[in-house]
Amino acid sequence: MGCPKTFFQVFSSDRNSQARIGQIETSHGKILTPAFVPVGSQATVKSLDTDDLLKIGTQVFFANTYHLYLRPGEKIIEKLCGLHRFANWPRPLMSDSGGFQVFSLGRSDLVKIDYQGVTFRSHLDGSKHYFTPEKSIEIQMKLGADIMIAFDHCAPYPADFDYVRSAMERTHRWAKQSLAAAQKRKNQFLFGVIQGGIEESLRKKSAQFIASLAFDGLAIGGVAVGEEKNEMVKVLDWVMPLLPKEKNQRPVHLLGVGEIDDIFQAVERGVDSLDCVMPTRLGRMGWLLIEDRQRDFKYDINKSQFAQDPSPVGDDCRCQVCRNFSKAYLHHLFRAHELLAYRLATYHNLFFMEQLFVKIRESIKKGEFLKLKEKWLEQ
Amino acid sequence: MGCPKTFFQVFSSDRNSQARIGQIETSHGKILTPAFVPVGSQATVKSLDTDDLLKIGTQVFFANTYHLYLRPGEKIIEKLCGLHRFANWPRPLMSDSGGFQVFSLGRSDLVKIDYQGVTFRSHLDGSKHYFTPEKSIEIQMKLGADIMIAFDHCAPYPADFDYVRSAMERTHRWAKQSLAAAQKRKNQFLFGVIQGGIEESLRKKSAQFIASLAFDGLAIGGVAVGEEKNEMVKVLDWVMPLLPKEKNQRPVHLLGVGEIDDIFQAVERGVDSLDCVMPTRLGRMGWLLIEDRQRDFKYDINKSQFAQDPSPVGDDCRCQVCRNFSKAYLHHLFRAHELLAYRLATYHNLFFMEQLFVKIRESIKKGEFLKLKEKWLEQ
Repeated sequence: MGCPKTFFQVFSSDRNSQARIGQIETSHGKILTPAFVPVGSQATVKSLDTDDLLKIGTQVFFANTYHLYLRPGEKIIEKLCGLHRFANWPRPLMSDSGGFQVFSLGRSDLVKIDYQGVTFRSHLDGSKHYFTPEKSIEIQMKLGADIMIAFDHCAPYPADFDYVRSAMERTHRWAKQSLAAAQKRKNQFLFGVIQGGIEESLRKKSAQFIASLAFDGLAIGGVAVGEEKNEMVKVLDWVMPLLPKEKNQRPVHLLGVGEIDDIFQAVERGVDSLDCVMPTRLGRMGWLLIEDRQRDFKYDINKSQFAQDPSPVGDDCRCQVCRNFSKAYLHHLFRAHELLAYRLATYHNLFFMEQLFVKIRESIKKGEFLKLKEKWLEQ
Repeated sequence: MGCPKTFFQVFSSDRNSQARIGQIETSHGKILTPAFVPVGSQATVKSLDTDDLLKIGTQVFFANTYHLYLRPGEKIIEKLCGLHRFANWPRPLMSDSGGFQVFSLGRSDLVKIDYQGVTFRSHLDGSKHYFTPEKSIEIQMKLGADIMIAFDHCAPYPADFDYVRSAMERTHRWAKQSLAAAQKRKNQFLFGVIQGGIEESLRKKSAQFIASLAFDGLAIGGVAVGEEKNEMVKVLDWVMPLLPKEKNQRPVHLLGVGEIDDIFQAVERGVDSLDCVMPTRLGRMGWLLIEDRQRDFKYDINKSQFAQDPSPVGDDCRCQVCRNFSKAYLHHLFRAHELLAYRLATYHNLFFMEQLFVKIRESIKKGEFLKLKEKWLEQ
């Protein structure tokens, strides 16, 4: 167990929904929830340095165990005093289990799942590797992120019932092994993963089982893997009521979700944190986030209509990019393939997400979350 | 003529060489000389934002007329209130004449030089364009850089005497036209370019002719184009004594030069500023600058020997990169092709250059420039 006495506290809940505000406390500081967790796969949130992240207000970011295990290797990061020091990041960090990448990035014809773990080949050099729950936890303990995730088997979508069930059962078995392997962790917290695809019976079973184990937090995996948008909402409606609200209250993280509308649906149902590559990946393509549902909350700065536009990226945005640069300049940088383009767009998009979460937390405090949701989604 | 009353002042000269310290004053602030001028071809010093440049201590950067004319176009930049506002850069800017790029980047089989100007095709889309001295100045006035350069014909290397002479004569003719075209400039200064290849008679003639015109400053072009290193020193030895030291004293800029040893040779002979892509281009390749002549002032962070090295990039460097990150982290970022790699390396290299020039200016003040040169070059 980690050093802060109270890992998670709920400060208040929305009157009209399950939305709640709270705080996760780690030895690297606090995370106000609901929180957005940007992804920094290779120990860097692509194109930004950690000073940028601090200015943006990023509370925590997500590093990928699979990537860091392959390069530079968890032993090197441990030797260099862990991920925080390596990446010069003073605030909390999360690491995933590697499970998702093993299945999705390893060459799928070469991925072999057995009772103990998964054999896979590196997407970098084809070399062969074997992950077990124990191995994943060992790597994550060496990386030293504040929050670790238990090794799970995320079924692809679509998959038949029997496959999804066996992936869930494997996830449950591996969850217990992950917990046992992590017993000697210090200042690190471990989240268990709920699986079960889009099968109601499996999701409910998985929620109850994972919630029954001594995890510090709970994660919902296996959504945002290609299913219809309303399926994620259904999964949350099955799972969330089964997670303890009173005794043994723990933070709930939704893995890989981050579209604006999904965020509102998840927070409404009590999710405390979410990670997603959406704002950073879109940014690098020139898609800039704005509060405009008509345009699906984004526009493409590459379009020639912005070539002479002196206005900032976001109309009311107070981020450094919007205060200093015009749409025309960003358009120029993207057209010229200048490296600065990716940074400025990523900066704006992550700032936009942080501000959205500030507004979400404020709205919950005021009991007006559903009003905010309506304002954003019903434009 | 520009608004500051005294465009250029020499504060003091070295006892034992022609090295001098001074100040160029523009309506966007002062440049202490000798000064290093990084290159920001497309209105951005590649990978950095202008906040980075301010922290580094960059006094001025160089934008390329050829690039900005083609994309986004000088009219758009003028409409957006000029290059300073467009790029969010509050300090001085220089623009070049476009001449060098027209000859080197335009498809050479399609470049046609006539009495009036040069026809060339864009390296971007093959479209046809025509530059004259008047056109170059017109573009530069729209860009609005503090210091402009007269349109010149830079002969390639090697080239026979007759070609170099005719390029020089064309440069002289175009110099007068550039001056005439720039008569109505406001808050902008114009430098004439001395050409003449590595021919003593031509260089001396060019120095005398260009110095006789009413330019605000003088630039030496046509070096660092492939000739032997000692040829540049010879050119400076021919040219520099012919430039007025007492009456009508003007700053002397050396175009495209920036290897560490060349910098010392140039400053020793009285050069006040130099621009070069070396530190930024090397940085993007993973070459990091250090004070070590044995290693040609740089090392390649990609090498596996740095994979576990916890020490900073530069031993005594106080830049933000060296204070916050290890060689191992930079090695990792380069190996992983992470965008942050290019920024951190560029940042360090430009900081290194600024610090070198701080030391150069201090040494001149103390009359110890040659001692500093010896320390750096005779290790």
